[in-house]
Amino acid sequence: MENIPIFRTPDEMRAWSHEKHNQGKVIGCVPTMGALHEGHLSLIRACAKDCGETIVTIFVNPIQFAPDEDFEKYPRNEKEDLSLAFGAGATAAYCPSVATMYGGDPSVFVIEEKMTKCLDGLSRPNHFRGVLTVVAKLFNATNPDRAYFGLKDYQQILLIKQMVHDLDFPVEITGCPIIREPDGLAMSSRNRYLLSAERKDALCLSKAIDAVTKMFNNGERQTRNLEWLARTIIESASTSKIDYISTRDAEDLSPVKDIEKPTLFALAIYIGTTRLIDNTVLTPVKEEQ
Amino acid sequence: MENIPIFRTPDEMRAWSHEKHNQGKVIGCVPTMGALHEGHLSLIRACAKDCGETIVTIFVNPIQFAPDEDFEKYPRNEKEDLSLAFGAGATAAYCPSVATMYGGDPSVFVIEEKMTKCLDGLSRPNHFRGVLTVVAKLFNATNPDRAYFGLKDYQQILLIKQMVHDLDFPVEITGCPIIREPDGLAMSSRNRYLLSAERKDALCLSKAIDAVTKMFNNGERQTRNLEWLARTIIESASTSKIDYISTRDAEDLSPVKDIEKPTLFALAIYIGTTRLIDNTVLTPVKEEQ
Repeated sequence: MENIPIFRTPDEMRAWSHEKHNQGKVIGCVPTMGALHEGHLSLIRACAKDCGETIVTIFVNPIQFAPDEDFEKYPRNEKEDLSLAFGAGATAAYCPSVATMYGGDPSVFVIEEKMTKCLDGLSRPNHFRGVLTVVAKLFNATNPDRAYFGLKDYQQILLIKQMVHDLDFPVEITGCPIIREPDGLAMSSRNRYLLSAERKDALCLSKAIDAVTKMFNNGERQTRNLEWLARTIIESASTSKIDYISTRDAEDLSPVKDIEKPTLFALAIYIGTTRLIDNTVLTPVKEEQ
Repeated sequence: MENIPIFRTPDEMRAWSHEKHNQGKVIGCVPTMGALHEGHLSLIRACAKDCGETIVTIFVNPIQFAPDEDFEKYPRNEKEDLSLAFGAGATAAYCPSVATMYGGDPSVFVIEEKMTKCLDGLSRPNHFRGVLTVVAKLFNATNPDRAYFGLKDYQQILLIKQMVHDLDFPVEITGCPIIREPDGLAMSSRNRYLLSAERKDALCLSKAIDAVTKMFNNGERQTRNLEWLARTIIESASTSKIDYISTRDAEDLSPVKDIEKPTLFALAIYIGTTRLIDNTVLTPVKEEQ
Protein backbone atom coordinates (compact mmCIF):
# COMPACT_ATOMS: atom_id res chain seq x y z
CA MET A 1 0.00 0.00 0.00
CA GLU A 2 2.89 2.40 0.55
CA ASN A 3 3.55 2.22 -3.16
CA ILE A 4 0.13 3.39 -4.24
CA PRO A 5 0.42 7.04 -5.22
CA ILE A 6 -1.36 9.83 -3.36
CA PHE A 7 -1.46 13.16 -5.18
CA ARG A 8 -1.97 16.56 -3.60
CA THR A 9 -2.05 18.95 -6.56
CA PRO A 10 -3.84 19.01 -9.93
CA ASP A 11 -0.52 19.03 -11.80
CA GLU A 12 0.79 15.91 -10.08
CA MET A 13 -2.54 14.16 -10.53
CA ARG A 14 -2.75 15.07 -14.20
CA ALA A 15 0.78 13.91 -14.95
CA TRP A 16 -0.09 10.47 -13.60
CA SER A 17 -3.35 10.28 -15.57
CA HIS A 18 -1.56 11.41 -18.70
CA GLU A 19 0.97 8.62 -18.30
CA LYS A 20 -1.75 6.02 -17.75
CA HIS A 21 -3.69 7.25 -20.77
CA ASN A 22 -0.51 7.00 -22.82
CA GLN A 23 -0.31 3.37 -21.70
CA GLY A 24 -3.81 2.90 -23.10
CA LYS A 25 -5.45 2.56 -19.69
CA VAL A 26 -9.07 3.47 -19.05
CA ILE A 27 -9.21 5.72 -15.98
CA GLY A 28 -12.12 5.68 -13.59
CA CYS A 29 -12.74 8.19 -10.81
CA VAL A 30 -14.72 7.92 -7.58
CA PRO A 31 -15.12 11.39 -6.02
CA THR A 32 -15.72 11.23 -2.27
CA MET A 33 -15.55 13.43 0.80
CA GLY A 34 -13.87 10.61 2.70
CA ALA A 35 -15.53 9.00 5.73
CA LEU A 36 -15.82 6.00 3.47
CA HIS A 37 -18.48 3.37 4.08
CA GLU A 38 -19.76 0.37 2.15
CA GLY A 39 -21.60 2.71 -0.23
CA HIS A 40 -18.33 4.29 -1.33
CA LEU A 41 -16.59 0.94 -1.43
CA SER A 42 -19.25 -0.40 -3.79
CA LEU A 43 -18.47 2.52 -6.12
CA ILE A 44 -14.76 1.81 -5.94
CA ARG A 45 -15.33 -1.87 -6.66
CA ALA A 46 -17.59 -1.07 -9.62
CA CYS A 47 -14.97 1.33 -10.95
CA ALA A 48 -12.11 -1.12 -10.48
CA LYS A 49 -14.12 -3.76 -12.32
CA ASP A 50 -14.69 -1.49 -15.35
CA CYS A 51 -11.44 0.48 -15.50
CA GLY A 52 -7.73 -0.24 -15.66
CA GLU A 53 -7.03 2.51 -13.12
CA THR A 54 -9.24 3.70 -10.27
CA ILE A 55 -8.63 7.12 -8.73
CA VAL A 56 -10.43 7.83 -5.47
CA THR A 57 -10.61 11.51 -4.60
CA ILE A 58 -10.95 12.50 -0.96
CA PHE A 59 -11.85 16.12 -0.33
CA VAL A 60 -14.33 17.64 2.12
CA ASN A 61 -15.55 20.43 -0.10
CA PRO A 62 -16.23 23.59 1.91
CA ILE A 63 -18.21 25.37 -0.80
CA GLN A 64 -20.97 22.78 -0.85
CA PHE A 65 -21.74 23.36 2.85
CA ALA A 66 -23.84 26.28 4.09
CA PRO A 67 -22.44 28.22 7.06
CA ASP A 68 -24.90 26.48 9.42
CA GLU A 69 -24.09 23.00 8.12
CA ASP A 70 -21.60 20.39 9.29
CA PHE A 71 -18.42 21.25 7.37
CA GLU A 72 -16.35 21.60 10.53
CA LYS A 73 -17.53 18.43 12.19
CA TYR A 74 -17.65 16.32 9.00
CA PRO A 75 -15.62 13.19 9.81
CA ARG A 76 -12.05 13.19 8.47
CA ASN A 77 -9.68 10.26 8.71
CA GLU A 78 -7.51 10.17 5.64
CA LYS A 79 -5.36 7.24 6.70
CA GLU A 80 -8.32 4.98 7.34
CA ASP A 81 -10.06 6.15 4.16
CA LEU A 82 -7.00 5.46 2.03
CA SER A 83 -6.66 2.01 3.52
CA LEU A 84 -10.31 1.23 2.76
CA ALA A 85 -10.09 2.69 -0.74
CA PHE A 86 -7.00 0.71 -1.65
CA GLY A 87 -8.53 -2.42 -0.15
CA ALA A 88 -11.51 -1.99 -2.49
CA GLY A 89 -9.35 -1.58 -5.58
CA ALA A 90 -8.23 2.05 -5.85
CA THR A 91 -4.91 2.43 -7.67
CA ALA A 92 -4.37 6.11 -6.89
CA ALA A 93 -5.77 8.78 -4.59
CA TYR A 94 -6.21 12.51 -5.10
CA CYS A 95 -6.32 14.33 -1.76
CA PRO A 96 -5.84 18.07 -2.29
CA SER A 97 -5.95 20.58 0.57
CA VAL A 98 -8.55 23.33 0.81
CA ALA A 99 -5.77 25.83 0.06
CA THR A 100 -4.85 23.95 -3.12
CA MET A 101 -8.46 23.80 -4.24
CA TYR A 102 -9.63 27.29 -3.28
CA GLY A 103 -6.53 29.41 -2.84
CA GLY A 104 -6.36 32.83 -4.49
CA ASP A 105 -9.88 34.10 -3.88
CA PRO A 106 -11.96 32.02 -6.31
CA SER A 107 -14.84 33.72 -8.12
CA VAL A 108 -15.73 31.27 -10.90
CA PHE A 109 -18.38 28.64 -10.30
CA VAL A 110 -20.38 26.08 -12.23
CA ILE A 111 -24.14 26.43 -11.76
CA GLU A 112 -27.26 24.66 -12.94
CA GLU A 113 -30.50 26.56 -13.41
CA LYS A 114 -33.33 24.09 -13.85
CA MET A 115 -33.06 20.88 -11.87
CA THR A 116 -31.56 22.71 -8.87
CA LYS A 117 -34.90 24.48 -8.27
CA CYS A 118 -36.28 21.59 -6.19
CA LEU A 119 -35.38 18.99 -3.55
CA ASP A 120 -31.91 19.54 -2.08
CA GLY A 121 -31.35 22.43 -4.46
CA LEU A 122 -34.16 24.27 -2.69
CA SER A 123 -33.26 23.22 0.86
CA ARG A 124 -29.53 23.87 0.40
CA PRO A 125 -29.29 26.93 -1.89
CA ASN A 126 -25.60 26.93 -2.89
CA HIS A 127 -25.01 23.23 -2.36
CA PHE A 128 -25.05 22.07 -5.98
CA ARG A 129 -23.05 25.04 -7.16
CA GLY A 130 -20.37 23.79 -4.79
CA VAL A 131 -20.79 20.21 -5.96
CA LEU A 132 -20.63 21.00 -9.69
CA THR A 133 -17.68 23.34 -9.23
CA VAL A 134 -15.67 20.81 -7.28
CA VAL A 135 -16.54 17.95 -9.63
CA ALA A 136 -15.44 20.07 -12.61
CA LYS A 137 -12.16 20.72 -10.80
CA LEU A 138 -11.73 17.05 -9.91
CA PHE A 139 -12.41 16.05 -13.51
CA ASN A 140 -9.87 18.60 -14.76
CA ALA A 141 -7.29 17.18 -12.36
CA THR A 142 -7.96 13.46 -12.73
CA ASN A 143 -9.01 13.38 -16.41
CA PRO A 144 -11.17 10.31 -15.99
CA ASP A 145 -12.90 8.39 -18.77
CA ARG A 146 -15.57 7.28 -16.33
CA ALA A 147 -16.83 8.44 -12.94
CA TYR A 148 -18.98 6.71 -10.35
CA PHE A 149 -21.52 8.25 -7.99
CA GLY A 150 -24.07 6.78 -5.59
CA LEU A 151 -27.77 6.95 -6.43
CA LYS A 152 -28.54 7.98 -2.86
CA ASP A 153 -27.62 11.46 -4.08
CA TYR A 154 -29.99 11.06 -7.00
CA GLN A 155 -30.35 14.76 -7.83
CA GLN A 156 -26.57 15.15 -7.70
CA ILE A 157 -26.07 12.48 -10.36
CA LEU A 158 -28.64 14.06 -12.68
CA LEU A 159 -26.87 17.40 -12.30
CA ILE A 160 -23.43 15.96 -12.90
CA LYS A 161 -24.69 14.17 -16.02
CA GLN A 162 -26.15 17.49 -17.17
CA MET A 163 -22.84 19.26 -16.53
CA VAL A 164 -20.91 16.62 -18.42
CA HIS A 165 -23.31 17.03 -21.34
CA ASP A 166 -23.53 20.81 -21.28
CA LEU A 167 -19.81 21.52 -20.78
CA ASP A 168 -18.58 18.69 -23.03
CA PHE A 169 -16.61 16.82 -20.40
CA PRO A 170 -15.48 13.53 -21.97
CA VAL A 171 -16.56 11.49 -18.96
CA GLU A 172 -19.14 8.72 -18.72
CA ILE A 173 -21.15 8.92 -15.49
CA THR A 174 -22.37 5.76 -13.78
CA GLY A 175 -24.86 5.76 -10.91
CA CYS A 176 -24.57 2.87 -8.45
CA PRO A 177 -27.35 1.48 -6.23
CA ILE A 178 -27.96 2.68 -2.69
CA ILE A 179 -26.21 0.44 -0.16
CA ARG A 180 -28.11 -0.13 3.07
CA GLU A 181 -27.37 -1.33 6.58
CA PRO A 182 -28.87 -4.75 7.39
CA ASP A 183 -31.86 -3.04 8.99
CA GLY A 184 -32.50 -0.86 5.92
CA LEU A 185 -30.92 2.49 6.76
CA ALA A 186 -29.16 3.88 3.69
CA MET A 187 -25.41 4.16 4.29
CA SER A 188 -24.23 7.70 4.85
CA SER A 189 -21.18 9.28 6.41
CA ARG A 190 -23.64 11.31 8.47
CA ASN A 191 -25.14 8.21 10.11
CA ARG A 192 -22.26 8.34 12.58
CA TYR A 193 -23.69 11.57 14.00
CA LEU A 194 -26.79 9.68 15.22
CA LEU A 195 -27.28 9.02 18.93
CA SER A 196 -28.60 5.60 19.73
CA ALA A 197 -32.29 6.54 20.02
CA GLU A 198 -31.95 8.60 16.85
CA ARG A 199 -30.40 5.65 15.05
CA LYS A 200 -33.63 3.74 15.66
CA ASP A 201 -35.80 6.65 14.56
CA ALA A 202 -33.73 7.01 11.39
CA LEU A 203 -35.22 3.75 10.21
CA CYS A 204 -38.43 5.64 9.47
CA LEU A 205 -36.78 6.71 6.20
CA SER A 206 -36.29 3.24 4.75
CA LYS A 207 -39.59 2.09 6.27
CA ALA A 208 -41.33 4.92 4.43
CA ILE A 209 -39.56 3.96 1.20
CA ASP A 210 -40.58 0.31 1.66
CA ALA A 211 -44.20 1.16 2.43
CA VAL A 212 -44.45 3.56 -0.50
CA THR A 213 -42.95 0.96 -2.83
CA LYS A 214 -45.47 -1.62 -1.63
CA MET A 215 -48.39 0.78 -2.05
CA PHE A 216 -47.13 1.63 -5.53
CA ASN A 217 -46.71 -2.03 -6.44
CA ASN A 218 -50.28 -2.60 -5.30
CA GLY A 219 -51.42 -0.14 -7.93
CA GLU A 220 -51.45 3.29 -6.29
CA ARG A 221 -50.38 5.90 -8.83
CA GLN A 222 -51.42 9.17 -7.16
CA THR A 223 -48.37 10.76 -5.65
CA ARG A 224 -50.32 12.64 -2.96
CA ASN A 225 -51.39 9.28 -1.51
CA LEU A 226 -47.86 7.91 -1.63
CA GLU A 227 -46.54 11.08 -0.03
CA TRP A 228 -49.24 10.98 2.65
CA LEU A 229 -48.18 7.45 3.57
CA ALA A 230 -44.51 8.42 3.81
CA ARG A 231 -45.37 11.50 5.88
CA THR A 232 -47.37 9.42 8.34
CA ILE A 233 -44.49 7.00 8.84
CA ILE A 234 -41.84 9.73 9.19
CA GLU A 235 -43.97 11.69 11.65
CA SER A 236 -44.38 8.63 13.85
CA ALA A 237 -40.66 8.83 14.75
CA SER A 238 -40.29 11.16 17.71
CA THR A 239 -36.95 12.81 16.76
CA SER A 240 -37.82 13.27 13.06
CA LYS A 241 -38.60 16.47 11.20
CA ILE A 242 -39.51 16.45 7.52
CA ASP A 243 -37.53 18.67 5.17
CA TYR A 244 -39.28 17.41 2.04
CA ILE A 245 -41.15 14.43 0.67
CA SER A 246 -41.31 14.79 -3.07
CA THR A 247 -42.28 12.82 -6.15
CA ARG A 248 -40.62 13.90 -9.37
CA ASP A 249 -39.87 12.76 -12.88
CA ALA A 250 -36.78 10.55 -12.68
CA GLU A 251 -35.18 12.20 -15.71
CA ASP A 252 -35.81 15.93 -15.35
CA LEU A 253 -37.21 16.26 -11.78
CA SER A 254 -40.41 17.93 -12.94
CA PRO A 255 -43.30 17.43 -10.45
CA VAL A 256 -45.47 14.34 -10.90
CA LYS A 257 -49.11 13.91 -9.87
CA ASP A 258 -49.95 10.54 -11.40
CA ILE A 259 -47.12 8.12 -12.01
CA GLU A 260 -46.93 7.01 -15.60
CA LYS A 261 -43.20 6.60 -16.10
CA PRO A 262 -40.09 6.15 -13.92
CA THR A 263 -40.52 8.51 -11.01
CA LEU A 264 -38.23 9.52 -8.19
CA PHE A 265 -39.67 9.32 -4.71
CA ALA A 266 -37.28 11.33 -2.54
CA LEU A 267 -37.19 12.26 1.12
CA ALA A 268 -35.03 14.53 3.23
CA ILE A 269 -35.57 14.60 6.97
CA TYR A 270 -33.84 15.67 10.12
CA ILE A 271 -33.28 13.17 12.89
CA GLY A 272 -32.37 15.46 15.74
CA THR A 273 -29.85 17.78 14.09
CA THR A 274 -28.70 15.25 11.49
CA ARG A 275 -30.05 15.65 7.98
CA LEU A 276 -30.59 12.38 6.11
CA ILE A 277 -31.86 11.65 2.60
CA ASP A 278 -33.15 8.57 0.89
CA ASN A 279 -34.99 7.76 -2.32
CA THR A 280 -36.27 5.14 -4.68
CA VAL A 281 -37.35 5.14 -8.29
CA LEU A 282 -40.89 3.87 -8.87
CA THR A 283 -41.21 2.31 -12.31
CA PRO A 284 -44.64 1.33 -13.61
CA VAL A 285 -44.64 -2.03 -15.37
CA LYS A 286 -46.36 -1.79 -18.73
CA GLU A 287 -49.66 -3.68 -18.25
CA GLU A 288 -50.72 -6.13 -20.90
CA GLN A 289 -53.14 -4.10 -22.99
CA MET B 1 -5.64 23.45 -47.72
CA GLU B 2 -8.20 20.71 -48.40
CA ASN B 3 -6.11 18.42 -46.25
CA ILE B 4 -6.31 20.52 -43.14
CA PRO B 5 -8.90 18.98 -40.86
CA ILE B 6 -12.12 20.74 -39.89
CA PHE B 7 -13.98 19.18 -36.96
CA ARG B 8 -17.66 19.59 -36.18
CA THR B 9 -18.13 17.67 -32.91
CA PRO B 10 -16.29 17.55 -29.57
CA ASP B 11 -15.54 13.83 -30.00
CA GLU B 12 -13.89 14.28 -33.42
CA MET B 13 -11.95 17.28 -32.17
CA ARG B 14 -10.77 15.49 -29.03
CA ALA B 15 -9.64 12.41 -30.92
CA TRP B 16 -7.37 14.59 -33.06
CA SER B 17 -5.96 16.45 -30.05
CA HIS B 18 -5.40 13.17 -28.25
CA GLU B 19 -3.41 11.85 -31.21
CA LYS B 20 -1.31 15.03 -31.40
CA HIS B 21 -0.63 14.94 -27.66
CA ASN B 22 0.46 11.33 -28.03
CA GLN B 23 2.93 12.52 -30.65
CA GLY B 24 4.29 14.93 -28.05
CA LYS B 25 2.89 18.03 -29.73
CA VAL B 26 2.02 21.19 -27.84
CA ILE B 27 -1.48 22.26 -28.84
CA GLY B 28 -2.52 25.89 -29.01
CA CYS B 29 -6.05 27.15 -29.43
CA VAL B 30 -7.38 30.45 -30.77
CA PRO B 31 -11.11 30.74 -30.01
CA THR B 32 -12.93 33.08 -32.40
CA MET B 33 -16.43 33.92 -33.58
CA GLY B 34 -15.14 34.06 -37.16
CA ALA B 35 -15.27 37.29 -39.19
CA LEU B 36 -11.52 37.14 -38.87
CA HIS B 37 -9.43 40.29 -39.13
CA GLU B 38 -5.79 41.15 -38.53
CA GLY B 39 -6.38 41.03 -34.78
CA HIS B 40 -7.37 37.36 -34.98
CA LEU B 41 -4.60 36.61 -37.43
CA SER B 42 -2.04 38.04 -35.02
CA LEU B 43 -3.33 35.59 -32.40
CA ILE B 44 -3.08 32.68 -34.82
CA ARG B 45 0.45 33.69 -35.78
CA ALA B 46 1.49 33.98 -32.12
CA CYS B 47 -0.01 30.58 -31.42
CA ALA B 48 1.62 28.93 -34.44
CA LYS B 49 4.95 30.38 -33.35
CA ASP B 50 4.66 28.88 -29.84
CA CYS B 51 2.87 25.60 -30.51
CA GLY B 52 3.30 22.54 -32.71
CA GLU B 53 -0.40 22.55 -33.54
CA THR B 54 -2.78 25.49 -33.80
CA ILE B 55 -6.52 24.94 -33.56
CA VAL B 56 -8.71 27.86 -34.57
CA THR B 57 -12.27 27.58 -33.33
CA ILE B 58 -15.02 29.39 -35.22
CA PHE B 59 -18.36 29.61 -33.47
CA VAL B 60 -20.76 32.54 -33.14
CA ASN B 61 -21.88 31.84 -29.60
CA PRO B 62 -25.57 32.68 -29.14
CA ILE B 63 -25.52 32.63 -25.33
CA GLN B 64 -23.11 35.56 -25.08
CA PHE B 65 -25.49 37.85 -26.99
CA ALA B 66 -28.47 39.55 -25.37
CA PRO B 67 -31.80 39.35 -27.27
CA ASP B 68 -31.38 42.96 -28.47
CA GLU B 69 -27.81 42.45 -29.65
CA ASP B 70 -26.39 41.51 -33.02
CA PHE B 71 -26.32 37.69 -32.94
CA GLU B 72 -28.41 37.37 -36.09
CA LYS B 73 -26.50 39.91 -38.14
CA TYR B 74 -23.05 38.97 -36.85
CA PRO B 75 -20.95 38.36 -39.99
CA ARG B 76 -20.48 34.69 -40.93
CA ASN B 77 -18.28 33.49 -43.76
CA GLU B 78 -16.73 30.20 -42.79
CA LYS B 79 -14.96 29.56 -46.07
CA GLU B 80 -13.16 32.91 -46.04
CA ASP B 81 -12.39 32.57 -42.31
CA LEU B 82 -10.89 29.11 -42.77
CA SER B 83 -8.77 30.34 -45.64
CA LEU B 84 -7.47 33.26 -43.55
CA ALA B 85 -6.88 31.04 -40.52
CA PHE B 86 -4.92 28.46 -42.44
CA GLY B 87 -2.97 31.17 -44.20
CA ALA B 88 -1.89 32.49 -40.78
CA GLY B 89 -0.77 29.08 -39.55
CA ALA B 90 -3.78 27.15 -38.22
CA THR B 91 -3.35 23.40 -38.52
CA ALA B 92 -6.92 22.45 -37.59
CA ALA B 93 -10.30 24.11 -37.19
CA TYR B 94 -13.15 23.38 -34.83
CA CYS B 95 -16.46 24.66 -36.23
CA PRO B 96 -19.37 23.14 -34.32
CA SER B 97 -23.00 24.00 -35.06
CA VAL B 98 -25.29 25.70 -32.54
CA ALA B 99 -27.21 22.41 -32.30
CA THR B 100 -24.01 20.54 -31.45
CA MET B 101 -23.04 23.09 -28.82
CA TYR B 102 -26.42 23.73 -27.22
CA GLY B 103 -28.65 20.82 -28.15
CA GLY B 104 -30.70 19.08 -25.45
CA ASP B 105 -31.85 22.07 -23.41
CA PRO B 106 -28.67 23.14 -21.60
CA SER B 107 -28.97 24.32 -18.00
CA VAL B 108 -25.36 24.30 -16.75
CA PHE B 109 -23.27 27.45 -17.02
CA VAL B 110 -19.95 28.81 -15.84
CA ILE B 111 -20.24 32.12 -14.02
CA GLU B 112 -17.91 34.62 -12.39
CA GLU B 113 -19.06 36.71 -9.45
CA LYS B 114 -16.54 39.46 -8.82
CA MET B 115 -14.88 40.92 -11.88
CA THR B 116 -18.12 40.69 -13.90
CA LYS B 117 -19.70 43.38 -11.73
CA CYS B 118 -18.27 46.21 -13.84
CA LEU B 119 -17.50 47.33 -17.39
CA ASP B 120 -18.97 44.97 -20.00
CA GLY B 121 -20.22 42.68 -17.25
CA LEU B 122 -22.52 45.49 -16.13
CA SER B 123 -23.55 46.68 -19.59
CA ARG B 124 -24.12 43.14 -20.93
CA PRO B 125 -25.52 41.14 -18.00
CA ASN B 126 -25.25 37.52 -19.24
CA HIS B 127 -22.42 38.14 -21.68
CA PHE B 128 -19.54 36.70 -19.69
CA ARG B 129 -21.57 33.76 -18.48
CA GLY B 130 -21.93 32.91 -22.17
CA VAL B 131 -18.24 33.53 -22.83
CA LEU B 132 -16.98 31.42 -19.92
CA THR B 133 -19.40 28.60 -20.69
CA VAL B 134 -18.42 28.42 -24.33
CA VAL B 135 -14.69 28.68 -23.58
CA ALA B 136 -15.00 25.83 -21.05
CA LYS B 137 -16.73 23.78 -23.76
CA LEU B 138 -14.11 24.70 -26.35
CA PHE B 139 -11.31 23.77 -23.95
CA ASN B 140 -12.99 20.44 -23.21
CA ALA B 141 -13.22 19.73 -26.93
CA THR B 142 -9.83 20.98 -28.10
CA ASN B 143 -7.75 20.12 -24.99
CA PRO B 144 -5.23 22.86 -25.61
CA ASP B 145 -2.02 23.44 -23.67
CA ARG B 146 -2.19 27.12 -24.49
CA ALA B 147 -4.88 29.54 -25.65
CA TYR B 148 -4.62 33.03 -27.15
CA PHE B 149 -6.99 35.95 -26.72
CA GLY B 150 -6.84 39.60 -27.76
CA LEU B 151 -6.29 42.28 -25.15
CA LYS B 152 -9.01 44.41 -26.75
CA ASP B 153 -11.36 42.23 -24.72
CA TYR B 154 -9.34 42.93 -21.60
CA GLN B 155 -12.01 41.99 -19.07
CA GLN B 156 -12.66 38.76 -20.97
CA ILE B 157 -9.03 37.67 -20.64
CA LEU B 158 -8.98 38.36 -16.91
CA LEU B 159 -12.13 36.28 -16.51
CA ILE B 160 -10.82 33.42 -18.61
CA LYS B 161 -7.59 33.41 -16.59
CA GLN B 162 -9.69 33.32 -13.44
CA MET B 163 -11.74 30.42 -14.79
CA VAL B 164 -8.63 28.49 -15.74
CA HIS B 165 -7.28 29.02 -12.24
CA ASP B 166 -10.51 28.37 -10.36
CA LEU B 167 -11.61 25.29 -12.33
CA ASP B 168 -8.11 23.82 -12.76
CA PHE B 169 -8.04 23.85 -16.54
CA PRO B 170 -4.51 22.89 -17.61
CA VAL B 171 -4.29 25.73 -20.12
CA GLU B 172 -1.90 28.66 -20.25
CA ILE B 173 -3.64 31.86 -21.35
CA THR B 174 -1.78 34.45 -23.41
CA GLY B 175 -3.13 37.93 -24.10
CA CYS B 176 -1.99 39.55 -27.35
CA PRO B 177 -1.79 43.29 -28.11
CA ILE B 178 -4.62 45.24 -29.71
CA ILE B 179 -4.18 45.48 -33.48
CA ARG B 180 -5.26 48.79 -35.01
CA GLU B 181 -6.13 50.11 -38.45
CA PRO B 182 -3.53 52.57 -39.83
CA ASP B 183 -5.65 55.49 -38.55
CA GLY B 184 -5.83 54.02 -35.03
CA LEU B 185 -9.24 52.31 -34.86
CA ALA B 186 -8.92 49.03 -32.97
CA MET B 187 -9.71 46.09 -35.25
CA SER B 188 -13.10 44.54 -34.57
CA SER B 189 -15.47 42.34 -36.53
CA ARG B 190 -18.10 44.93 -35.71
CA ASN B 191 -16.24 47.71 -37.53
CA ARG B 192 -17.83 46.44 -40.72
CA TYR B 193 -21.22 47.60 -39.43
CA LEU B 194 -20.05 51.23 -39.54
CA LEU B 195 -21.41 53.58 -42.20
CA SER B 196 -18.84 55.88 -43.71
CA ALA B 197 -19.55 58.94 -41.51
CA GLU B 198 -19.65 56.64 -38.49
CA ARG B 199 -16.29 55.14 -39.44
CA LYS B 200 -14.78 58.62 -39.07
CA ASP B 201 -16.55 59.24 -35.77
CA ALA B 202 -15.31 55.87 -34.46
CA LEU B 203 -11.82 57.33 -34.40
CA CYS B 204 -12.82 59.26 -31.29
CA LEU B 205 -12.11 56.03 -29.36
CA SER B 206 -8.44 55.72 -30.24
CA LYS B 207 -8.06 59.51 -30.11
CA ALA B 208 -9.36 59.43 -26.56
CA ILE B 209 -6.98 56.61 -25.69
CA ASP B 210 -4.06 58.53 -27.19
CA ALA B 211 -4.94 61.78 -25.42
CA VAL B 212 -5.41 60.02 -22.08
CA THR B 213 -2.09 58.21 -22.48
CA LYS B 214 -0.37 61.52 -23.23
CA MET B 215 -1.98 63.25 -20.23
CA PHE B 216 -0.96 60.30 -18.05
CA ASN B 217 2.60 60.35 -19.38
CA ASN B 218 2.71 64.06 -18.56
CA GLY B 219 2.09 63.18 -14.93
CA GLU B 220 -1.68 63.20 -14.44
CA ARG B 221 -2.62 60.48 -11.97
CA GLN B 222 -6.20 61.42 -11.05
CA THR B 223 -8.54 59.21 -12.98
CA ARG B 224 -11.41 61.71 -12.93
CA ASN B 225 -9.26 64.09 -14.99
CA LEU B 226 -8.27 61.37 -17.42
CA GLU B 227 -11.90 60.29 -17.74
CA TRP B 228 -13.03 63.89 -18.23
CA LEU B 229 -10.60 64.26 -21.13
CA ALA B 230 -11.80 61.04 -22.77
CA ARG B 231 -15.43 62.05 -22.30
CA THR B 232 -14.81 65.40 -23.98
CA ILE B 233 -13.24 63.74 -26.99
CA ILE B 234 -15.91 61.04 -27.33
CA GLU B 235 -18.72 63.58 -27.02
CA SER B 236 -17.25 65.70 -29.80
CA ALA B 237 -18.15 62.93 -32.29
CA SER B 238 -21.72 63.50 -33.44
CA THR B 239 -22.84 59.85 -33.75
CA SER B 240 -21.23 58.71 -30.49
CA LYS B 241 -22.90 57.73 -27.25
CA ILE B 242 -20.90 56.74 -24.20
CA ASP B 243 -21.67 53.41 -22.54
CA TYR B 244 -18.84 53.66 -20.03
CA ILE B 245 -15.47 55.28 -19.48
CA SER B 246 -13.79 53.53 -16.60
CA THR B 247 -10.43 53.34 -14.86
CA ARG B 248 -9.78 50.12 -12.98
CA ASP B 249 -7.02 48.08 -11.46
CA ALA B 250 -5.45 46.08 -14.27
CA GLU B 251 -5.36 42.88 -12.22
CA ASP B 252 -8.67 42.74 -10.36
CA LEU B 253 -10.75 45.54 -11.95
CA SER B 254 -11.32 47.30 -8.65
CA PRO B 255 -12.02 51.05 -9.11
CA VAL B 256 -9.01 53.39 -9.11
CA LYS B 257 -8.95 57.07 -8.11
CA ASP B 258 -5.24 57.82 -8.21
CA ILE B 259 -3.07 55.69 -10.42
CA GLU B 260 -0.23 54.05 -8.54
CA LYS B 261 0.12 50.75 -10.36
CA PRO B 262 -0.84 49.28 -13.74
CA THR B 263 -4.36 50.50 -14.44
CA LEU B 264 -6.84 49.68 -17.15
CA PHE B 265 -8.39 52.63 -18.93
CA ALA B 266 -11.41 51.18 -20.75
CA LEU B 267 -14.13 52.65 -22.92
CA ALA B 268 -17.31 51.32 -24.47
CA ILE B 269 -19.30 53.54 -26.78
CA TYR B 270 -21.98 53.36 -29.38
CA ILE B 271 -21.35 54.79 -32.81
CA GLY B 272 -24.86 54.86 -34.21
CA THR B 273 -26.13 51.39 -33.28
CA THR B 274 -22.69 49.76 -33.26
CA ARG B 275 -21.10 49.10 -29.90
CA LEU B 276 -17.30 49.43 -29.86
CA ILE B 277 -14.76 49.00 -27.09
CA ASP B 278 -11.13 49.98 -26.66
CA ASN B 279 -8.66 50.18 -23.81
CA THR B 280 -5.11 50.73 -22.73
CA VAL B 281 -3.13 49.91 -19.62
CA LEU B 282 -1.51 52.92 -17.94
CA THR B 283 1.64 51.89 -16.10
CA PRO B 284 3.36 54.40 -13.82
CA VAL B 285 7.14 54.37 -14.15
CA LYS B 286 8.77 54.17 -10.75
CA GLU B 287 10.25 57.68 -10.21
CA GLU B 288 13.73 58.03 -8.80
CA GLN B 289 13.17 58.58 -5.07
